[in-house]
Amino acid sequence: MSAENAVQQYIRENGQRFVEELSELLRIPSISAESAHAPDMLRCAEWLCDALLRSGADRAEVMSTDGNPVVYAEKTADPAAPTVLVYGHYDVMPVDPAGEWTNGPFDPVIREGRIWARGANDDKGQSYMHLKAMEAMLATGTLPCNLKFMLEGEEEIGSASLGKWCTEHQELLKADVILVSDTSLLGWKTPSITCGLRGLCYMEIEVTGPNKELHSGLYGGAVANPANVLARLIAALTDEEGRITIPHFYDTVRELTPAEREAFGKAPFCEAAYRKGLGIRSTQGETGYTTMERTGIRPSLDVNGIWSGYTGEGTKTVIPSKACAKISMRLVPDQDYRQIARLFEEYMQALAPAGVSVNVRALHGGYPYLTPTDLPAYRAAAAAVEETFGKEPLPYYSGGSIPIISTFEKVLGLKSVLLGFGLDQDAIHSPNESYALENFYRGIDTIARFHRHFAAILKSHA
Amino acid sequence: MSAENAVQQYIRENGQRFVEELSELLRIPSISAESAHAPDMLRCAEWLCDALLRSGADRAEVMSTDGNPVVYAEKTADPAAPTVLVYGHYDVMPVDPAGEWTNGPFDPVIREGRIWARGANDDKGQSYMHLKAMEAMLATGTLPCNLKFMLEGEEEIGSASLGKWCTEHQELLKADVILVSDTSLLGWKTPSITCGLRGLCYMEIEVTGPNKELHSGLYGGAVANPANVLARLIAALTDEEGRITIPHFYDTVRELTPAEREAFGKAPFCEAAYRKGLGIRSTQGETGYTTMERTGIRPSLDVNGIWSGYTGEGTKTVIPSKACAKISMRLVPDQDYRQIARLFEEYMQALAPAGVSVNVRALHGGYPYLTPTDLPAYRAAAAAVEETFGKEPLPYYSGGSIPIISTFEKVLGLKSVLLGFGLDQDAIHSPNESYALENFYRGIDTIARFHRHFAAILKSHA
Repeated sequence: MSAENAVQQYIRENGQRFVEELSELLRIPSISAESAHAPDMLRCAEWLCDALLRSGADRAEVMSTDGNPVVYAEKTADPAAPTVLVYGHYDVMPVDPAGEWTNGPFDPVIREGRIWARGANDDKGQSYMHLKAMEAMLATGTLPCNLKFMLEGEEEIGSASLGKWCTEHQELLKADVILVSDTSLLGWKTPSITCGLRGLCYMEIEVTGPNKELHSGLYGGAVANPANVLARLIAALTDEEGRITIPHFYDTVRELTPAEREAFGKAPFCEAAYRKGLGIRSTQGETGYTTMERTGIRPSLDVNGIWSGYTGEGTKTVIPSKACAKISMRLVPDQDYRQIARLFEEYMQALAPAGVSVNVRALHGGYPYLTPTDLPAYRAAAAAVEETFGKEPLPYYSGGSIPIISTFEKVLGLKSVLLGFGLDQDAIHSPNESYALENFYRGIDTIARFHRHFAAILKSHA
Repeated sequence: MSAENAVQQYIRENGQRFVEELSELLRIPSISAESAHAPDMLRCAEWLCDALLRSGADRAEVMSTDGNPVVYAEKTADPAAPTVLVYGHYDVMPVDPAGEWTNGPFDPVIREGRIWARGANDDKGQSYMHLKAMEAMLATGTLPCNLKFMLEGEEEIGSASLGKWCTEHQELLKADVILVSDTSLLGWKTPSITCGLRGLCYMEIEVTGPNKELHSGLYGGAVANPANVLARLIAALTDEEGRITIPHFYDTVRELTPAEREAFGKAPFCEAAYRKGLGIRSTQGETGYTTMERTGIRPSLDVNGIWSGYTGEGTKTVIPSKACAKISMRLVPDQDYRQIARLFEEYMQALAPAGVSVNVRALHGGYPYLTPTDLPAYRAAAAAVEETFGKEPLPYYSGGSIPIISTFEKVLGLKSVLLGFGLDQDAIHSPNESYALENFYRGIDTIARFHRHFAAILKSHA
């Protein structure tokens, strides 16, 4: 029997037990955002530690961080084989609005071929596939790589402690690549692998004019109005072509190769349905790029909030003393959010008229991330997906940000492959989160195939 | 004894009683903005009605309106003489912050040659001078004009009922001019007459984009952001020269004659002190005009309030669904606020990109007003002021708006002369409002002289 068939048979024979184990994991309400659940975080970490040992790990331990613990484990197959570091998270989002759940969010049920609970997909369900893939490969004598696991408890609250913990455990975390299942497929019939994440540069700007609110009749026309000035500053950040006009903003933007762009362009997209879903007559963005490209591979700039002066009912004839805005930019490789923050501030200061003072603060930042599609691990993942889904996966560039992935690259020097099996309908972060058992089983199969392809590709390169 | 000397002597001999009477008026807490004071409004109107009769009016009555009553009175001197309609108001502003008053706001005291109370100047003190001028002229047999009085109780809340009341009483209100004491002098040694008031066009604009708040990572770059669009719209309302760019905005702006502009330019103004008082490094406005001209004789445009998206602490990565702003324009003769509102809306709609919808509402409007300095009543006022202050008054163009003054012109066809005797230090609308007794006495003398000059000028024209 081939390794593939052996693993598939093992999944068929043990799948129901896998789901029962996952249900047990899902019963632990490990909500990282709510301090009342601190004991549940530790309980969940300990449960996973046991599960990793039961699944065949040589070693597993709950390791403390400045925040919630990290579950670390490893399984050495062959010191000469490549090492894959699996990253996942055991913390989950809050359950509000609680009243909208059909079953209790921590009382998992199987219905319509799906498992329903908070974390069913994100990320307990997706992480647990990696434990069961290890078990299946060990049971069938087909584990071709060494495995390490790093399961954190703070992903939903920004992975605040993990960067430092990685820095302190670089030796322990040595590997050839990081494998992550925490993303979605474009569709069941449109398999995809997320290979781009945008970075973030989040700024706040405050324009101060006169030292008090002024009567707009007595002073209007003679004094720079901070709200008018702020509007001009914001308007000056983009041009009619939808490009960002901060000098040197695009200097470090890496363009996709024509082949990468062509592959991404194959992702199915219905502009009319997109517009209808948002209730807009027209999309709008940078000239020369499609809607998917505008969110996936190009930087963007958005006002997230703005406030100044009188905002109540009716009229008040004032010139405000201050005007503020929160403005964030999504970044793409190789933009550095710290440099972009500096360029933003310099540009704003240069444009500010003499009648006001401008204060700019950087509130938050994260690096963009890109998995090159010629990376051996990407090719291994693509080959595995093509086998299990019968179709070559599309490279997908997400507009969102997972800052910890770029932190891994900075701190550990490791690329990540985002091999996720979620679907839009799984409603992660929402009431009635679920995960199809078919995805769960096929994911385990795909993960096992990834390891075989990855080991083979690296061997052929050696 | 000349008429002038007779009136001056009468004021000297009776001035203390005048102040005692004014104190009685100031004890009535006629705050129009606070409904709890509704009975005080009527009591105040009745008190004034009696005071007008005691001061020599042939007829005085409290007349109902849709809101607080108007006190109407008249004194016929000679059917062939010109008629002057005195306008004033008996309602006062609220007293907040009440804790900052040295004496009770409705417990007037005389201290440092001033009377301290809410309304001491605005406008009980200034209105009451007209009653006492009538009394002095009657007592000395020197009343050269017929007098009418129209004292309203809603000036501080926008004179909501007076326009309609005037329309319904056009016959009763027939006169040659309206005389108003509800403004200030540039200074005790810089007498001035307010001859310009700006109009107002107050708009609200709402920009709607997607039908819900969107994740700025997943959608940023592909969708028109209503807050960014609003900033562009606002920025497009003015240019680098400080001019308003709404097409046809300036079409009906009347330029002052070089002589009028020169006379206005004589008003003392210290740019350094102005900047220091506002805490700004630089003034800013329309190229080619001084600071006084920018607020006095030129239109202006100000954002009074703006709001959209997330305005709390820290970061939230959203594309807002809506963005709103309140934007008002101060207008000058002969701009029509209804036409300006239309031009504003047309311009905003024309600039709005396809990805958003724009809703524009006119919230409030008022016409600008101008007293030509060659008007007989202005010349009479200037001559009177020159006699009592020893200096020719400067024409002053205020940036503020008193919409009821332009309503008088529309409804009654009458020009107004704004012969006010307040000073900046009187702190109207603030705690510890006061009025110098010297201003009160000199105002009465000046008003009496106005009537003599006015009658003489009209006679010489006849």
